[in-house]
Amino acid sequence: MDSAELADLGQQLRVDGIRASAAAGSGHPTSSMSAADLMAVLLAHHLHYDFDRPAHPANDRFVHASPLLYAAYKAAGAIDDDELLTFRTLGSRLEGHPTPRRLPWVETATGSLGQGLPVGVGIALSGKRLESSAYRVWVLCGDSELAEGSVWEAAEHASYENLDNLTAIVDVNRLGQRGPTRHGHDLDAYARRFRAFGWHIIEIDGHDVDAIDRAYGEARSTLGQPSVILARTLKGKGVADVEDREGLHGKPLENADDAIEELGGVRDLRVRVHTPDVDRVLHSVPGGPLDLPRWEQGEKAATRDAFGKALAALGTARGDVVALDGEVGDSTRTELFAKEHPERYVECYIAEQQLVAAAVGLAARGWVPYAATFAAFLTRAHDVIRMAAVSGSGINLVGSHAGVAIGRDGPSQMGLEDLAMMRSVHGSTVLYPCDAHQTARLVATMAGLDGVRYLRTSRGEGPVLYGPDEEFPVGGSKVLRSSGRDDRLTIVAAGVTVPEALAAADALDAQGIPVRVVDLYSVKPVDRDTLRRAAEETGCLLTVEDHRPEGGLGDAVLDAFVDGRPVPRLVRLAVTTMPGSASPQEQLHAAGIDAESIAAAVRLLVEQAITP
Amino acid sequence: MDSAELADLGQQLRVDGIRASAAAGSGHPTSSMSAADLMAVLLAHHLHYDFDRPAHPANDRFVHASPLLYAAYKAAGAIDDDELLTFRTLGSRLEGHPTPRRLPWVETATGSLGQGLPVGVGIALSGKRLESSAYRVWVLCGDSELAEGSVWEAAEHASYENLDNLTAIVDVNRLGQRGPTRHGHDLDAYARRFRAFGWHIIEIDGHDVDAIDRAYGEARSTLGQPSVILARTLKGKGVADVEDREGLHGKPLENADDAIEELGGVRDLRVRVHTPDVDRVLHSVPGGPLDLPRWEQGEKAATRDAFGKALAALGTARGDVVALDGEVGDSTRTELFAKEHPERYVECYIAEQQLVAAAVGLAARGWVPYAATFAAFLTRAHDVIRMAAVSGSGINLVGSHAGVAIGRDGPSQMGLEDLAMMRSVHGSTVLYPCDAHQTARLVATMAGLDGVRYLRTSRGEGPVLYGPDEEFPVGGSKVLRSSGRDDRLTIVAAGVTVPEALAAADALDAQGIPVRVVDLYSVKPVDRDTLRRAAEETGCLLTVEDHRPEGGLGDAVLDAFVDGRPVPRLVRLAVTTMPGSASPQEQLHAAGIDAESIAAAVRLLVEQAITP
Repeated sequence: MDSAELADLGQQLRVDGIRASAAAGSGHPTSSMSAADLMAVLLAHHLHYDFDRPAHPANDRFVHASPLLYAAYKAAGAIDDDELLTFRTLGSRLEGHPTPRRLPWVETATGSLGQGLPVGVGIALSGKRLESSAYRVWVLCGDSELAEGSVWEAAEHASYENLDNLTAIVDVNRLGQRGPTRHGHDLDAYARRFRAFGWHIIEIDGHDVDAIDRAYGEARSTLGQPSVILARTLKGKGVADVEDREGLHGKPLENADDAIEELGGVRDLRVRVHTPDVDRVLHSVPGGPLDLPRWEQGEKAATRDAFGKALAALGTARGDVVALDGEVGDSTRTELFAKEHPERYVECYIAEQQLVAAAVGLAARGWVPYAATFAAFLTRAHDVIRMAAVSGSGINLVGSHAGVAIGRDGPSQMGLEDLAMMRSVHGSTVLYPCDAHQTARLVATMAGLDGVRYLRTSRGEGPVLYGPDEEFPVGGSKVLRSSGRDDRLTIVAAGVTVPEALAAADALDAQGIPVRVVDLYSVKPVDRDTLRRAAEETGCLLTVEDHRPEGGLGDAVLDAFVDGRPVPRLVRLAVTTMPGSASPQEQLHAAGIDAESIAAAVRLLVEQAITP
Repeated sequence: MDSAELADLGQQLRVDGIRASAAAGSGHPTSSMSAADLMAVLLAHHLHYDFDRPAHPANDRFVHASPLLYAAYKAAGAIDDDELLTFRTLGSRLEGHPTPRRLPWVETATGSLGQGLPVGVGIALSGKRLESSAYRVWVLCGDSELAEGSVWEAAEHASYENLDNLTAIVDVNRLGQRGPTRHGHDLDAYARRFRAFGWHIIEIDGHDVDAIDRAYGEARSTLGQPSVILARTLKGKGVADVEDREGLHGKPLENADDAIEELGGVRDLRVRVHTPDVDRVLHSVPGGPLDLPRWEQGEKAATRDAFGKALAALGTARGDVVALDGEVGDSTRTELFAKEHPERYVECYIAEQQLVAAAVGLAARGWVPYAATFAAFLTRAHDVIRMAAVSGSGINLVGSHAGVAIGRDGPSQMGLEDLAMMRSVHGSTVLYPCDAHQTARLVATMAGLDGVRYLRTSRGEGPVLYGPDEEFPVGGSKVLRSSGRDDRLTIVAAGVTVPEALAAADALDAQGIPVRVVDLYSVKPVDRDTLRRAAEETGCLLTVEDHRPEGGLGDAVLDAFVDGRPVPRLVRLAVTTMPGSASPQEQLHAAGIDAESIAAAVRLLVEQAITP
């Protein structure tokens, strides 16, 4: 296309963004108008993408938000005009913010600002380090989202990994939602920042299609570092009523018809988007038999150690497994994977948002990522995890050092809210093993699940309770002690509270009080059948968890009873105080979740039979 | 002190860090050894602090981690040697990571990396903009934590606000926990980044006490911008066995006695820390009567609007109220506060970690901060919120645009996990009003509570259900429909589901099925008495929430029954699917939480009497 045609295509994208938003009665047309020329030139000249084969491994990857993206899809012939006008309506694939669950060409869900670039880094990392594929990753960002720390975690990671296949395109339209950004049209302010972080800088007028064209060419030919194109644009460009004006973010244009006329009317230009230069990419993923680690009965082992060993073994069996570390691999034990599979190990340093976003990017490219840090610090990535669920992304998260059982480091390092966070993630699986063999099996199992999967591991060593061939289906549990209908109640435990519950059961049994003990290693989904049977046969469930009372094991048990059936009596032991520093056993006792506390609670419930 | 004395003080701090860690059998002595000289010079020459009067408004503020901090307290005479050696033991004030709940000189809990600087920005902001006090804020950071995006949110905010009362001291010891940092001893790499973000840069040898002294002087005399001192140091400095060696993070020294001898033995130097130059600071906080907004019965209003209006009124009544915005003040309605009290309004742009950390910093200075953004985006600050609870910080968080009821913007913008997140925060209060008067009252009430308080608001308009003089105690609820013991079951709703529940109750009543409706506006703590009475009288509770099933209203209701008493039948209606784009009413219907769905569920439960 020549310059005039490119400019005309930009106008079409503006018009179509306005039309889609007007039809929906909502949307972000003014932001789409500022970036329309950037999109037009990318689509016409630089993007290599086969819209008929969105899974083509050599396709470029493009991350951006709507409705501009949908206008571009129409121009590329991927959707038709009728579908464009279903934008934001019930049942439409064209949601307010695009998601890969609905549209085959979307790499990752957008809508939470500052996450496109970190996920783009993960995709670029795959292309550069794991796939050796020549695809490029183009991420269109807003200027206002550069205030997010996640963007600078990504900037640091991208330059450290020399991701010259990654281009950030910043639509510097100077206006955020509420008003002007900190830096307005001061492109140099952004240039200084990205340059300091090791990026190649290109500053342009974002409405000059020739300058845009040259900038993309320069980005494509820049080697050894990622590029950022800082484009000076005007929000609402092309329509005098709204151009460069405040207070119009996320609102359809009031006079859409006049605006469309001002932009030269509705067009139906079609772009032949370049398809990838290569037809297929041979992408070898070696594999072999899975040889999980084994322990002796009576041996002691930490579940974090079991995780690290199992992950290393899984990495040998499956060439598609990748591990990511938040600079605590010696603690989480991902370092055991790193030693055996350094080429599939990504060190993300202390940047948990980038850690999880990189996993999302890698999962988008077909890898099976395991990202691990302390359970406490996964809270840092909560929004990225939430958005991973919106994307339908299949990622494995591992949180170590859960609960007060870590001991002396104190509450800042104790994951005490992680079960609540991970249970509330849509479509998630939450696993909390208590011994080494259980951990190893679950590490392997979780690789094959859908959605966001979470494994909670512990710092200290515990007894090996299960044999190496025991199976642990997701949604299952293990009844570790039972005298059938003689059981006076059921203790439901998981992780570090399982050995405590067993010790309590032994002590109670010696006093003539038989109790059932259930190891609820699958916190979500829970084993409804076993819990219901326990309720029916014993009448009372006592849950014991190294977690806050809210949203954890105690609440999870309720999942088995919220369909209106009779609920057993429920008693919840959990961490209700703010721990200080102490030894692990002192911590469990102070929190009232050790064997002694459990036994005391049971005696109270059984012998005194509390009633309201 | 002269140079030799300063160096000697540095050695003492090293020795005491080693001793404390050795006594505890855990801790971070090697990191304390790298920063010991930086601490010694600060303490002896530059810090202005009255240890006898930690609440003195003109005290400098210092943020750092242990055990170095405790060694410094000993040198300053604030604690004695015996107490120093209680480090990390049960009952000691000297926790693994310091917290202000236990020690009067600690500004904010540390231990989650990258949060000291953002909180320090909040404190500096108070000194500069709100108190006009001459105190300085000194934040000692590690180099590895500069990978956290939260640090760059803080860097941006500090320079934007010209916080020349803030000095970051970066202990560049080149080693993180697992191994070398990205940039090792390349001070220039950090210098480029901070300079680009608008900071004044000072690079020094962090073991040269004269250079350190000059650096602090330069920072103190630099006007108009924050300063960062980049200090090249060696981890484990002074003990050949551990100096500059990997694999020793967070571990006590193996040969503590030899190390202490190598450092010249135990010392007992005392430092007379400068006290503030001024004796008192007059800090006027005007106030007046509280004149909350009022609405007419039958009028429609959004709870977010009620929040904004009430906050503006509260700001007039209370001079200590400050509002913070994450660049969405037009949506959350904090802009209504901004219009009336611009001097107490802090725009944090799209940087939610800094948004909440600034609130924590302001609360540490006695302000009553309200930080607001979309409920969905508060997840971005989850770790900061968690650490605020560890600090015992009193902050108000407001999450708008909760749930599917926002309509077309789609799941990325819908807060559907916020109740689970906020309930799991230790000592938190969680409020979810359904009408304008209730919102206004709760906005005023929450100001006086302890701990982290959360208010959930809604985007759309709803009916005004309550009168302007109705009171809404925290831990209470309102029974909106009841026929006493004739009620067939109880619908428990909050926020947008309250009007839906009322409509369902009316429809059911017309069909001869009387039901009770409880407005559970206080989600944590819950109104145990009312829920227990409803359980006893109606036998079944049906919870209806615009939130994920896990950790929200349905689980909160269980809080009333987990002490072993009989539990009623429980049925939970919540958002179990991934919403797309649709109108608010379509969304509520698709999620099965509108009046029609509620009535259908009730009929099923009452008429078909589901049993297992």
